[in-house]
Amino acid sequence: TIVEVLENQQHPKVLKGKNVLITAGPTREKIDPVRYFTNPSTGKMGFALARQAAFLGAEVTLITGPVNLTAPAGVKRIDVITAEDMYNQVLEHFSTNDIVIKAAAVADYRPKQTFAQKMKKQPGEYTVEMERTKDILAELGKRKEHQYLIGFAAETNDVERYGREKLAKKNLDAIVINNVSEADSGFGHDTNSSLFITKQGRETTFPVISKDEMARQILMKSLEELGW
Amino acid sequence: TIVEVLENQQHPKVLKGKNVLITAGPTREKIDPVRYFTNPSTGKMGFALARQAAFLGAEVTLITGPVNLTAPAGVKRIDVITAEDMYNQVLEHFSTNDIVIKAAAVADYRPKQTFAQKMKKQPGEYTVEMERTKDILAELGKRKEHQYLIGFAAETNDVERYGREKLAKKNLDAIVINNVSEADSGFGHDTNSSLFITKQGRETTFPVISKDEMARQILMKSLEELGW
Repeated sequence: TIVEVLENQQHPKVLKGKNVLITAGPTREKIDPVRYFTNPSTGKMGFALARQAAFLGAEVTLITGPVNLTAPAGVKRIDVITAEDMYNQVLEHFSTNDIVIKAAAVADYRPKQTFAQKMKKQPGEYTVEMERTKDILAELGKRKEHQYLIGFAAETNDVERYGREKLAKKNLDAIVINNVSEADSGFGHDTNSSLFITKQGRETTFPVISKDEMARQILMKSLEELGW
Repeated sequence: TIVEVLENQQHPKVLKGKNVLITAGPTREKIDPVRYFTNPSTGKMGFALARQAAFLGAEVTLITGPVNLTAPAGVKRIDVITAEDMYNQVLEHFSTNDIVIKAAAVADYRPKQTFAQKMKKQPGEYTVEMERTKDILAELGKRKEHQYLIGFAAETNDVERYGREKLAKKNLDAIVINNVSEADSGFGHDTNSSLFITKQGRETTFPVISKDEMARQILMKSLEELGW
């Protein structure tokens, strides 16, 4: 759009020549063709990161679950449905990227069995056996070489403690910790609030601001740490 | 919109003075604040029915699950999340409506237990115990007095047989039978194909047409049967 072109001209191209990989949205884990498990992610935070990274001159790859959003101009968009698809695509693109930001809300469980045809309902209860999906962020943390790896934590309680644990355990360079129970923050909102912590221990509290503004600041803070 | 106003003027007001209740979209059945069970309904068919019923002069109430659609002008929209919410709202509005069309894809199962805080993932498998939700269509079939009640069947196999069984078992006046496995039909598409069967045994096969065109034809066929 014209607005994007104009905004684009106002950004210093501090990410020129850099490759940035961003994931966004939810995943869907099917029971059958008409039933699945998912989460309330709308992809807004990931798309904001992709937009801001592109504004700053990066080559952006955006791997997204099913969302109702249009990819920013110039961004390479890859659509996936399941956590398994997301794992495969992210792993395929990891080695060639410099900054990797996992904003997607990937399902951590999926039904063990998926039926090709609609399961007919029966009277009474039934049980869905769930198994763990592959942990993408942990895998990236293990394989990390030159990449600057940023994760997200979406929690409803003991938010900061869980976030700090995740930063260390998954070998991240930084983490964006969201309390998704807070008003005007998290899933579906145009605004967000969070605590941004880097491996070096620098902490930034973002009050409720637009997801685009938070995205820009996350990228700028990361650049500072990288010394670019 | 202006287009709506113009289109509006081209429709004979054959539903003037009639109340039409339409349901649309999916429902969400929570496990915890960040995990739920749902289906791929986008609400397009239900919103098309609401739009066309309004064009034909009806007073339209549209009860919808979470969707990314704008309600047609003049339509009374009621938003719900769960099958239980949907049940309560539909039952509350049933008695005052003349035509009731259940286009929503209501979850027939929900987790027995819902956690107020995000469940922490554990290594290994886990089991989700599911229980049946209330069967809205069956309840409406029982309570039906003057209402003309239309249901939808979304199937992937034995499509026609299941649809005919549902028409009889739930005491419907007509049913729209979709094969959601077919190309360009069912969830998310702007077009649909279906078999429309009335209690009197009249059958209409709709080839792949726009959901708005199908909505208009469903309403016109129902009016014929009602002798309005």
